[in-house]
Amino acid sequence: MPKRNAFYAQSGGVTAVINASACGVIEAAKASKDIGTVYAGQNGILGALNEELIDTSKETAKTISQLRHTPSGAFGSCRYKLKGLDENRSEYERLIEVFKAHNIGHFFYNGGGDSQDTTHKLAEFSAEVGYPLNCIGIPKTIDNDLPLTDNCPGFGSVAKYVAISTKEAALDVASMCESSTKVFILEVMGRNAGWIAAAGGLAIQQDGDAPHIIIFPEIPFKRETFLRRVNKTVKKHGYCVIVASEGAKDTSGQYLSGSSSTDAFGHIQLGGVAPTLAEMIKRKFGYKYHWAMADYLQRSARHIASKTDVEQAYALGEAAVHFSLAGKTAIMPTIVRGKGKKYSWKVGEAPLAEVANVEKMLPRHFISRDGWSITDAARDYLAPLITGEDYPPYKNGLPVYARLKKVLVDKKLPKRRSPRVKS
Amino acid sequence: MPKRNAFYAQSGGVTAVINASACGVIEAAKASKDIGTVYAGQNGILGALNEELIDTSKETAKTISQLRHTPSGAFGSCRYKLKGLDENRSEYERLIEVFKAHNIGHFFYNGGGDSQDTTHKLAEFSAEVGYPLNCIGIPKTIDNDLPLTDNCPGFGSVAKYVAISTKEAALDVASMCESSTKVFILEVMGRNAGWIAAAGGLAIQQDGDAPHIIIFPEIPFKRETFLRRVNKTVKKHGYCVIVASEGAKDTSGQYLSGSSSTDAFGHIQLGGVAPTLAEMIKRKFGYKYHWAMADYLQRSARHIASKTDVEQAYALGEAAVHFSLAGKTAIMPTIVRGKGKKYSWKVGEAPLAEVANVEKMLPRHFISRDGWSITDAARDYLAPLITGEDYPPYKNGLPVYARLKKVLVDKKLPKRRSPRVKS
Repeated sequence: MPKRNAFYAQSGGVTAVINASACGVIEAAKASKDIGTVYAGQNGILGALNEELIDTSKETAKTISQLRHTPSGAFGSCRYKLKGLDENRSEYERLIEVFKAHNIGHFFYNGGGDSQDTTHKLAEFSAEVGYPLNCIGIPKTIDNDLPLTDNCPGFGSVAKYVAISTKEAALDVASMCESSTKVFILEVMGRNAGWIAAAGGLAIQQDGDAPHIIIFPEIPFKRETFLRRVNKTVKKHGYCVIVASEGAKDTSGQYLSGSSSTDAFGHIQLGGVAPTLAEMIKRKFGYKYHWAMADYLQRSARHIASKTDVEQAYALGEAAVHFSLAGKTAIMPTIVRGKGKKYSWKVGEAPLAEVANVEKMLPRHFISRDGWSITDAARDYLAPLITGEDYPPYKNGLPVYARLKKVLVDKKLPKRRSPRVKS
Repeated sequence: MPKRNAFYAQSGGVTAVINASACGVIEAAKASKDIGTVYAGQNGILGALNEELIDTSKETAKTISQLRHTPSGAFGSCRYKLKGLDENRSEYERLIEVFKAHNIGHFFYNGGGDSQDTTHKLAEFSAEVGYPLNCIGIPKTIDNDLPLTDNCPGFGSVAKYVAISTKEAALDVASMCESSTKVFILEVMGRNAGWIAAAGGLAIQQDGDAPHIIIFPEIPFKRETFLRRVNKTVKKHGYCVIVASEGAKDTSGQYLSGSSSTDAFGHIQLGGVAPTLAEMIKRKFGYKYHWAMADYLQRSARHIASKTDVEQAYALGEAAVHFSLAGKTAIMPTIVRGKGKKYSWKVGEAPLAEVANVEKMLPRHFISRDGWSITDAARDYLAPLITGEDYPPYKNGLPVYARLKKVLVDKKLPKRRSPRVKS
């Protein structure tokens, strides 16, 4: 059988290490000699639908190797979820049409839960229509909410960023609290899962260390208990540092951040859990506060990526290629944690049928009994994931990140009406 | 003359490298053999007023050396400005009383403009009352607004953090803009000086690179021009990245961030330039936005400090000791930039009489003609200040920062009523 090409696409919110997975795919494909060219979807799966395929062989080997230390999605990502086969068969037909036109026999989709679902459906569809296509999902999400893998590439680096930032900002507050700011709140991502917020807890290395309070989406927020705890902490330590998850909800299930002009407590605001909490504390106790919203900074902070995370992201990209070459389909390479006391990991695999549409929440035993901190079990799980530094090269004080040429392959098919994308 | 002791205090908002200056002071004093013990003020000058003196000789040499890579103010800082001599002579008397009781002959005050002013006044007062005290100010401020020094320790590191964060977040936005966020705003510190915002401009390395818009406090903000520019940028590049100074003001001199429940444009908000701008853009064009407020994260980010900045902070601490031992007083060691094309610097000195109460603003020729970006002159000035990395050591994925014992010297004076501090 002649060599077939591969298609690779990035999906959903990007991370500090998704390009490391891309690098793993492209370098492994090149090394194998059994894959022709890796085409990357321009802006994710939209690139396949629109036949906008970036020819990665037009990039230099150096540029490809730089992907390992470049944050964000170098080929472009998108928030576009293919519907189910029943609802939108034509999109799946279009994908197969494009893949056929470009002799693509390997499909690598690098994303979160939705992407794994799409990969699974495409595997079923290609089998149904008799088009040989190995469909491999590569896990990626800062939210760490994919099942069957010990952790998701992207999470370790955001966890490291949040732990370090919490530690650093806490030192700042501690040094000024006698005469200035007494309460500091760092709002972190993670949607409905508290994994990222939990990582803030790694900054606690001794009794009394910050963060003194972590607000998890998994624990309904009780205002009065919270305020009492803040005050007690300020009285005891002179200051109080809080890590708050963007997905925090009150006891009635309302988001604390609010979504319009009124927050869960009737105060008017522009959104954000941190300012809501800060105002709440200010009104009650008058404490001077500061808050930070790291937003995209946390998921793009390649400058302080976890070495473990980078290595795993690369390894999963590489493994995806090896699995596909071994004829496997409808699977996702996973991280399997070793049993020993010393952290170790290897690559495993999970059937996509079992991955799709399952969200892995922070287990209750990772959260302290009172609901405001993490347990030793959480520390044991989290700590290895932030271990090691993997600094990018620098020039003139700034990291040197890959700049791609992004040469598009000539189209072979008639133009298709652009699918509508949600913004 | 028997060896006399030294007093060192940290003042005002802390930085990623103020402890490097402390390290320079303590190590130089120890090396000189002409200074007894360095006592550090617990919580800045309040430590002197309250006779709460930390005996730095009780810390191990290793802990002291760790100060070089530890952010924040390790001895505690404070926002407490001594009044003028006419208004509050008793505070100056108290300082001299404490210094006399502990045989202190060297006064090192590490802070911004207010602290230089205090140091100057104390030098005058000690001369007036005939108490021999060499008073040396050590510059520190992330705002870079001290005169007579080419730059201030603390600024280079926040500048590096902001430049890198802008670059990283911009890559994130660029990769998603086709189907998601089109506008990203990073709000930065700097009060009324645009130095930190300008540093965001260093992320521009090629035409079209972010940030596409910088909002300086020095340039009155024009809403319509801004909105037009945002839209043009999104149309051209697909996305728009903005770095906004917290001190941005509109044409009537009102802060954009607002200070109460209503912003400069009549919209209700909790404060913050970034959310104000984001809402403005959303209302006009409907673009999906994200914004980040780095707040204390930017000034405590020792993990990505500028090597140049660390070296200068240390050198100025060291120089302060040498100046004092040479019998100088009422001066501040400064950074003097070499004339050559290649960046070089050495330590100079400036009389405190000329430093006090002068704010160095971002010069107009550092801002592009249209007011939305930086010029080559600004780049030439800024780039060397962020050059070099100076990573702290890590253990288990987290930086190892100094933890001081903070042993207080036995008091020799009757207790003084605590001065009231503003929060």
